[in-house]
Amino acid sequence: MKVTPSISLFPILGIPLITPQDDLALVITKCAQKIGLELKDGILVVAQKVISKAEDRLVSMSKVTPSEKAREIAREDEKDPRHMEVVLQESEAIVRHGNRVLITETRHGFVCANAGVDLSNAPGEDIAVLLPLNPDESANQLRKGLEELGGQRLAVVITDTFGRPWREGLVDVAIGSSGIAPIDDFRGQTDLAGRELVVTTAATVDQLAAAAGMLMQKDSGIPAVWVTGVPVTGEGCVADLIRNPSEDLFR
Amino acid sequence: MKVTPSISLFPILGIPLITPQDDLALVITKCAQKIGLELKDGILVVAQKVISKAEDRLVSMSKVTPSEKAREIAREDEKDPRHMEVVLQESEAIVRHGNRVLITETRHGFVCANAGVDLSNAPGEDIAVLLPLNPDESANQLRKGLEELGGQRLAVVITDTFGRPWREGLVDVAIGSSGIAPIDDFRGQTDLAGRELVVTTAATVDQLAAAAGMLMQKDSGIPAVWVTGVPVTGEGCVADLIRNPSEDLFR
Repeated sequence: MKVTPSISLFPILGIPLITPQDDLALVITKCAQKIGLELKDGILVVAQKVISKAEDRLVSMSKVTPSEKAREIAREDEKDPRHMEVVLQESEAIVRHGNRVLITETRHGFVCANAGVDLSNAPGEDIAVLLPLNPDESANQLRKGLEELGGQRLAVVITDTFGRPWREGLVDVAIGSSGIAPIDDFRGQTDLAGRELVVTTAATVDQLAAAAGMLMQKDSGIPAVWVTGVPVTGEGCVADLIRNPSEDLFR
Repeated sequence: MKVTPSISLFPILGIPLITPQDDLALVITKCAQKIGLELKDGILVVAQKVISKAEDRLVSMSKVTPSEKAREIAREDEKDPRHMEVVLQESEAIVRHGNRVLITETRHGFVCANAGVDLSNAPGEDIAVLLPLNPDESANQLRKGLEELGGQRLAVVITDTFGRPWREGLVDVAIGSSGIAPIDDFRGQTDLAGRELVVTTAATVDQLAAAAGMLMQKDSGIPAVWVTGVPVTGEGCVADLIRNPSEDLFR
């Protein structure tokens, strides 16, 4: 007896290293077709780095002049002062600094290490890769592009790999989304015993990000995963799930 | 053309409400068989509440006498003082308290709301469900039980639904595991450009928890999910991924 899975994750194989000259929707559609995947009724989860490269969110480190603050952090943490300068430029605020880790709040409101500015897997030793300027809009544009190429009833989730307080290890989270409600809200529904569920709100886009992350680990060369079996419904984007700083206990 | 997914998630349907009299491994094995699932070469992800009920980690609220501290928190947060008393008893320390949210550190070292003590879906209005005493050992026992009933090369991950700083919405995380490395460590490997990956360590058990959480949401009545396509390798347990408090920037 063959059992049909409820949720399936398909790695989209064969995606080449992306440059600003590439039409990402076209590249992904072609690679999906090549492995027999139809981009209908599912969610495309894409790693941030691919989006950032397509959008030319790259900074040549040789053109960066580190500030005194960047030099100070770099000295303390044994990091590249130019890298730290780019991190500071991408940050609204430093949230924590210690143990050679710099946690900042990005302009989008994300709280993460190094403002998401990454040197690994960058297209050249001297290049820093920044987060997309507006990842929700990036997701929206990619979704539209995929739909123009035949995709139907699909959502797009853009992910990055974040650390967490209190736990070692990294897990992918959503930084942009389009075509799916970021949070599945159960408030007002009842539990199995008939009691009202007060605060059960599942962060669907982050669940999708973490799940797809299992196929997107850095040595895999797989920057996009197709997920089926999760309802593609609702509206909103990742910006909607950033907690209001005034209600945040960990700023 | 039918494409084979890399990772598949199968909800284990038909699991009844669990009591301390139930043999959980037997119940799960039978329900899996009924839907044609063989528990071989995969990971069983189980919701904490099922484990807690099987282990009788239940407290009758009518027998709880709230301390002055519990009354104070309950007054401020408009909560049940007996519930708050159980939370305090299950906590090593209060990490944050504000906005009607009580974040504590449990005896296991987890940092979460209300020490994981839950009233919803409990088997009776007056019952609080506590976290398992040793969720890693619970996972280990369940894995052994499943193997005795014919399961092969399987891992077990026990999950609970936690909130996160900075982001609205809940995501399941692992609180216990057995038979799989909790963290997939890429340190020392190289990225696609040949640079050494310094800190890329994926928290595999938390990725599995979040993925399975998509099928375990509170109104679904599905407390167990079978995941295939993720390598069942390595050793260790969830206790290994609790960050050392002295290295934690968010205590």
